[in-house]
Amino acid sequence: MAGPEIERLIQLLARLPGLGPRSARRVALRLLERREILMEPLAQALTEAAARIRPCRRCGNFDTVDPCAICADPRRDPSLLCVVEDVAALWAMERTGSFSGRYVVLGGLLSALDGVGPDDLGIGRLLDRVGEGGVAEVILALPATVDGQTTAHYLAERLEGGAVAVSGLAQGVPVGGDLDHLDDGTITAALRARRRV
Amino acid sequence: MAGPEIERLIQLLARLPGLGPRSARRVALRLLERREILMEPLAQALTEAAARIRPCRRCGNFDTVDPCAICADPRRDPSLLCVVEDVAALWAMERTGSFSGRYVVLGGLLSALDGVGPDDLGIGRLLDRVGEGGVAEVILALPATVDGQTTAHYLAERLEGGAVAVSGLAQGVPVGGDLDHLDDGTITAALRARRRV
Ligand SMILES: [Zn+2]
Ligand SMILES: [Zn+2]
Repeated sequence: MAGPEIERLIQLLARLPGLGPRSARRVALRLLERREILMEPLAQALTEAAARIRPCRRCGNFDTVDPCAICADPRRDPSLLCVVEDVAALWAMERTGSFSGRYVVLGGLLSALDGVGPDDLGIGRLLDRVGEGGVAEVILALPATVDGQTTAHYLAERLEGGAVAVSGLAQGVPVGGDLDHLDDGTITAALRARRRV
Repeated sequence: MAGPEIERLIQLLARLPGLGPRSARRVALRLLERREILMEPLAQALTEAAARIRPCRRCGNFDTVDPCAICADPRRDPSLLCVVEDVAALWAMERTGSFSGRYVVLGGLLSALDGVGPDDLGIGRLLDRVGEGGVAEVILALPATVDGQTTAHYLAERLEGGAVAVSGLAQGVPVGGDLDHLDDGTITAALRARRRV
């Protein structure tokens, strides 16, 4: 009823998180109604982002430069390395403004149910970074879920025996809580009260 | 923290209906994580839609051709003209499969509060269509809200005295209900039981 171009657009929009077929239709119509002030700028922003933004090969963050701005910033403390599940968690950490070190993005969590093993995650990247030297502490900023804690224990074991201290976020992270859905104050408190694991 | 390209993308996504700043961030990250299978196809679909899809000058529907496929379809009954608030309502009518006539999209409803007067809507388009002759019945498929019914009464008065019958959706449309949020059966029933106004 709406032509193949519109149907294709609705289908793609329906694959975005939080949108279903009905809300994808509403979004498509809003875009068509605001072609010049919304649809064309969004098309351009997406084209530009797809062409220019890549994962940082060093940490996994997204940026137009590689290494990313955080990895390249000489004011960030290279002795503190924060391990996060994904870029959403990295951004959540950054929003708190309370972490001055650098990151490694795992790109997921160990999960027996979903069949995610160590080789599927950026664990090699973490071990390489620690092996280079200069890292005094690895902070495992992982969610307080079964998979998050399984992953934290696995990483703590892999790092055991080295010169590096391993800590985890502690106080304030609610069980089952995703970093991206927590308020900044809770994350800040959990970071300050981090404990060895 | 995320670079100007990503910030720009998040800002545009946050202007879509149903998305706020947090869900726009989630959408942006999903797009970046699925660059080749989601972000690039969506950028292309938006670029193509923005370039090719226009409002039909005859009825206001969106299509790549003008007049649109509905206006151009010789199997549609030209004596039945359905007046809808917007293209979302037109699509909702089409999904029912129970209307075989043609449309006029108003592009809104009369609203004293929002300062929407007759000149802001496609009422001239409606009167022109009726004036051309060949229309036997105008169906006012407008929402059962204050603005919807105000608009229906205004249009019924403007069409009074002509040779054309004016009807409105009746049974089944709940008060305060938007066409786009109703199930197909309710719309079909309301269309079948339409009454003169
Ligand atoms: Zn980096
Ligand atoms: Zn048309």
